[in-house]
Amino acid sequence: MEKKYPRILFRKRLKDLRKDMEEVSQKTLKTHKLAVDLLMEYDEEKKEKVIKNSRAIDDMVFNLERKAISLIAAEQPVAGDLRFIEACIKVGSHLKRIGYLAANIAEAAEKLKDEEIPRRPLEDLKHMSDFVQMMLSKGIYAFLDQNMEMARELRHDDDKVDDLFDQTLEHVTRSMFEDKESISYLVNLLFIARFLERVGDRAVSIADRTIFMITCEKP
Amino acid sequence: MEKKYPRILFRKRLKDLRKDMEEVSQKTLKTHKLAVDLLMEYDEEKKEKVIKNSRAIDDMVFNLERKAISLIAAEQPVAGDLRFIEACIKVGSHLKRIGYLAANIAEAAEKLKDEEIPRRPLEDLKHMSDFVQMMLSKGIYAFLDQNMEMARELRHDDDKVDDLFDQTLEHVTRSMFEDKESISYLVNLLFIARFLERVGDRAVSIADRTIFMITCEKP
Repeated sequence: MEKKYPRILFRKRLKDLRKDMEEVSQKTLKTHKLAVDLLMEYDEEKKEKVIKNSRAIDDMVFNLERKAISLIAAEQPVAGDLRFIEACIKVGSHLKRIGYLAANIAEAAEKLKDEEIPRRPLEDLKHMSDFVQMMLSKGIYAFLDQNMEMARELRHDDDKVDDLFDQTLEHVTRSMFEDKESISYLVNLLFIARFLERVGDRAVSIADRTIFMITCEKP
Repeated sequence: MEKKYPRILFRKRLKDLRKDMEEVSQKTLKTHKLAVDLLMEYDEEKKEKVIKNSRAIDDMVFNLERKAISLIAAEQPVAGDLRFIEACIKVGSHLKRIGYLAANIAEAAEKLKDEEIPRRPLEDLKHMSDFVQMMLSKGIYAFLDQNMEMARELRHDDDKVDDLFDQTLEHVTRSMFEDKESISYLVNLLFIARFLERVGDRAVSIADRTIFMITCEKP
């Protein structure tokens, strides 16, 4: 077998790690999209898929972490390589958490499937989920492509999500006020808005980690 | 200067890392306690302290991560030492998140400070916050003392938190139903219950990480 020079082997292991990150990132993006679509049109099979995917993402991240840590211990990477590997560990834990938030959204959507959702709050959540999905893909591609400008933009996008959250909160509480019978199920809309807000925060954390990886500055 | 054998230096660096973990763990425990006490008796100064502490915990964890990663890269630890250092990185990120959840609780408590909170939901939250505080200290001491039995217990404690969450949800929505005017501020009780549930989940994650550190089994 052709004797591999250590540095070639190291480069190969780094490439593998990056491929793993791409795979788990794509799975997270698809799973989040699947979950938020359930808000508009509930489907039992898709809901089960979201739950199954969130566990698969957990396992993928667990294995990815093992690889990253053993790569650091075995190869003593420095500077940019070390920051990239470390970033993979951190971004991996954000993706894992987003997977579970998607599962939370799917389970809350199930509780609402037979209920009449007032138009305004539903529109708010549609708007918020579209926006958060965009933030998530921006955060992931900023990391994979090491794109600083895209990463910096996400900070401002996050303010928009906070506004959409407050707007949803206002419309949901007004609907509750107008129809007391709806209180017991409309609380699920509040939790969904909260889960989406947390996905947005995680997208910002992925972007912050990207900025740190490239510049060594804590944003 | 007396020439330090590498292994002695390594042992010293491990001890420093452990000391950092103890410090940030204690600060997190105190900050969470400070935050949940605000539910019973709001105090502006204590609220500011919680916010300040949550940022200090973030910085402490950031520095701790740097130390842990450079320790892995420089000293090529293996087996138990490597799993301990890796666990410090993961437990650190849980503590950071718990610090921010404490800040969320404090900010929600501020929104309720001038409101009349119905007795039942307030009792539920008191019960839930006491229980979660216990889980948090159990999770932290299980990690610091590498106590497997204590870590395994936490899985069952988590079921209790889910029950307390559902109970709080039921009593809050009933109070909303009985007094429509309270809806706009009682939603904050729902979010506080949600934040406490998340702190409980984090305590379980610290325990799971402890079990993995000791046994190499993914719980």
